[in-house]
Amino acid sequence: MDDLLTRHDLGPVTRLTLSRPATYNALSLEMIEALIAALARIDDDTRVVILAAEGKAFCAGHDLRQMQAMAPDQLAHLFDRCAHLMQMIPALPQPVIAQVQGVATAAGCQLVASCDMAVAADGARFGVNGVSIGLFCATPMVALTRAIPPKAAFEMLTTGDFITAPRAAELGLVNRVVPAADLEAETMRLADSIAAKPPQVIRMGKRAFHDQLGQGTAAAYAATAQVMCTNMALPETVEGIGAFLEKRPPNWT
Amino acid sequence: MDDLLTRHDLGPVTRLTLSRPATYNALSLEMIEALIAALARIDDDTRVVILAAEGKAFCAGHDLRQMQAMAPDQLAHLFDRCAHLMQMIPALPQPVIAQVQGVATAAGCQLVASCDMAVAADGARFGVNGVSIGLFCATPMVALTRAIPPKAAFEMLTTGDFITAPRAAELGLVNRVVPAADLEAETMRLADSIAAKPPQVIRMGKRAFHDQLGQGTAAAYAATAQVMCTNMALPETVEGIGAFLEKRPPNWT
Amino acid sequence: MDDLLTRHDLGPVTRLTLSRPATYNALSLEMIEALIAALARIDDDTRVVILAAEGKAFCAGHDLRQMQAMAPDQLAHLFDRCAHLMQMIPALPQPVIAQVQGVATAAGCQLVASCDMAVAADGARFGVNGVSIGLFCATPMVALTRAIPPKAAFEMLTTGDFITAPRAAELGLVNRVVPAADLEAETMRLADSIAAKPPQVIRMGKRAFHDQLGQGTAAAYAATAQVMCTNMALPETVEGIGAFLEKRPPNWT
Repeated sequence: MDDLLTRHDLGPVTRLTLSRPATYNALSLEMIEALIAALARIDDDTRVVILAAEGKAFCAGHDLRQMQAMAPDQLAHLFDRCAHLMQMIPALPQPVIAQVQGVATAAGCQLVASCDMAVAADGARFGVNGVSIGLFCATPMVALTRAIPPKAAFEMLTTGDFITAPRAAELGLVNRVVPAADLEAETMRLADSIAAKPPQVIRMGKRAFHDQLGQGTAAAYAATAQVMCTNMALPETVEGIGAFLEKRPPNWT
Repeated sequence: MDDLLTRHDLGPVTRLTLSRPATYNALSLEMIEALIAALARIDDDTRVVILAAEGKAFCAGHDLRQMQAMAPDQLAHLFDRCAHLMQMIPALPQPVIAQVQGVATAAGCQLVASCDMAVAADGARFGVNGVSIGLFCATPMVALTRAIPPKAAFEMLTTGDFITAPRAAELGLVNRVVPAADLEAETMRLADSIAAKPPQVIRMGKRAFHDQLGQGTAAAYAATAQVMCTNMALPETVEGIGAFLEKRPPNWT
Repeated sequence: MDDLLTRHDLGPVTRLTLSRPATYNALSLEMIEALIAALARIDDDTRVVILAAEGKAFCAGHDLRQMQAMAPDQLAHLFDRCAHLMQMIPALPQPVIAQVQGVATAAGCQLVASCDMAVAADGARFGVNGVSIGLFCATPMVALTRAIPPKAAFEMLTTGDFITAPRAAELGLVNRVVPAADLEAETMRLADSIAAKPPQVIRMGKRAFHDQLGQGTAAAYAATAQVMCTNMALPETVEGIGAFLEKRPPNWT
């Protein structure tokens, strides 16, 4: 495994940890490629992915020193790969949970917004503050405005101001805020809860979730009614319904 | 009136009450058909519909025992009829308010999300917990994700965890939370407030509300500007504006 | 400058103040035309626009006495011009901040919802209460439902009930609530924070913000990745990144 990123398999949960604390886990081109490669290697043995980070910060966004040295075509390639990474997360069959301590900045904040869920330590802070150095967070905005209300997003993007973890929870950017000491355990607890469900059901559900978000209501109902029918035919579902009616736990092995 | 569902006409407000408390008002095919038939019978004498439920629970979702016995084509029919019911609610000319006590589960939670508004007793709880028995709440998700922020919806759908009434209010799934003893009176108060307005105006407004939600901003403005013009020509509106300018109550009989 | 509206240039911030306190700053056709003309005159010397109001109310919506006397084609013209005004605000290159005291009613509430951000005095109240006189706030609804969750919007539109400033902040209609005595200073502080950023960057970002809101995610990423590349080539951005890496303030003059 590339040492920019460490992978831990904890039963059905895979934790990917950004491991460049000295650079606040900046999303250099190499880090982006390491994330893309790591997500591409996730297979059916994994039911839930946790995206964590080593050190004081979750992720400080792009590597500005690297970007400063890039020619225009190199920059275009960098943003293209970064947008590809961000779109891989909702497209991955497994749910992805961000586990966030410290700052999540610019593309680091986008990474949190792009995950299906996020758990934050109480001291975590979130910003799309590229504007403060003259680089508007245009691509992070895509994920951010699909997670939080527009006026709040506009303020973050044009002032560069950071928000606290409790405010991020109010706005819908993170699912829950926990004491820093409990961050890893609480994130695992959330992951385990999902990993205990039949993985085929979670995959089918996650795909349908993202597909229907962009559809009109009638089209969304037509597509999801079909998903319900397919779901009902799965052996795990037959067992799950039978177990419920017989008031016993399902036998999912 | 079918005894699965009772209808009470309280002046201009019609209350439809799910009346199968022994099955937690499960949405069997018969209950779905009873609701469809009852909504189809709502006519101009009704200005607001309240959807209430008898017993400890609002609605526990589909009837799993019935579903377990269904062949694939029967299941397809069930989901088709259920999706039809859910889409009848926004399409109904009259506003529909859910009055919720106890649990609202799976398609029961979808019923709440599909109503134009909802009032909840303080002990009510909401879940799309089909995943816990292996059946992802794919169709309930359509209504849920159009009512609350995406990360919160994703968590409910993949963990099966319930949320409390105050949390449902924070997220936008319900409009207000009241003590259980006040639930019926507070829901009636909300209904009466709307029933006191000219019914043609409410109908035109409700239709425009749902139509414009799915449109681009420019198209939405073009369509609603036309609605304003049509509205201005109504006799009730001429009287309403006149009364306001003369500082007297409108004479709407 | 037309005396319906006063303009103050405070360095890079332009404040436009509705100046008809005796009519609660009603949006008569003349006031709408004054606002359209004033926004059309905003040029590159202005970096941020504040939309403020004189007197006890921010804006009480349309001028009902004027509307009452209008023929159908005049009404159609009025709503057309009003919708044009509301759509000029997101289309303006500069961010627009509403500074709100007192009531913001009907088209006045729409004006707040249409601004990129809003700051409210703690006693401010917001309503789309046309329904109370028989005129459903159909065009205000377009801006409102794009700022706050649907069930809350439906309630405001069909009951005509007002919400408080803290509730407006919870829902996302305003960004922050401050004591009335601090309203002007806090709004200026927010404006100054944005005016201190390179104006070309803010303009590019604001345009991209509104463009991508209506796009699918893949299209939004393709468009914003291009914006990032264009942004990186600006001299202000080269200086901003250089200054950051050299741990000095940027030299933006």
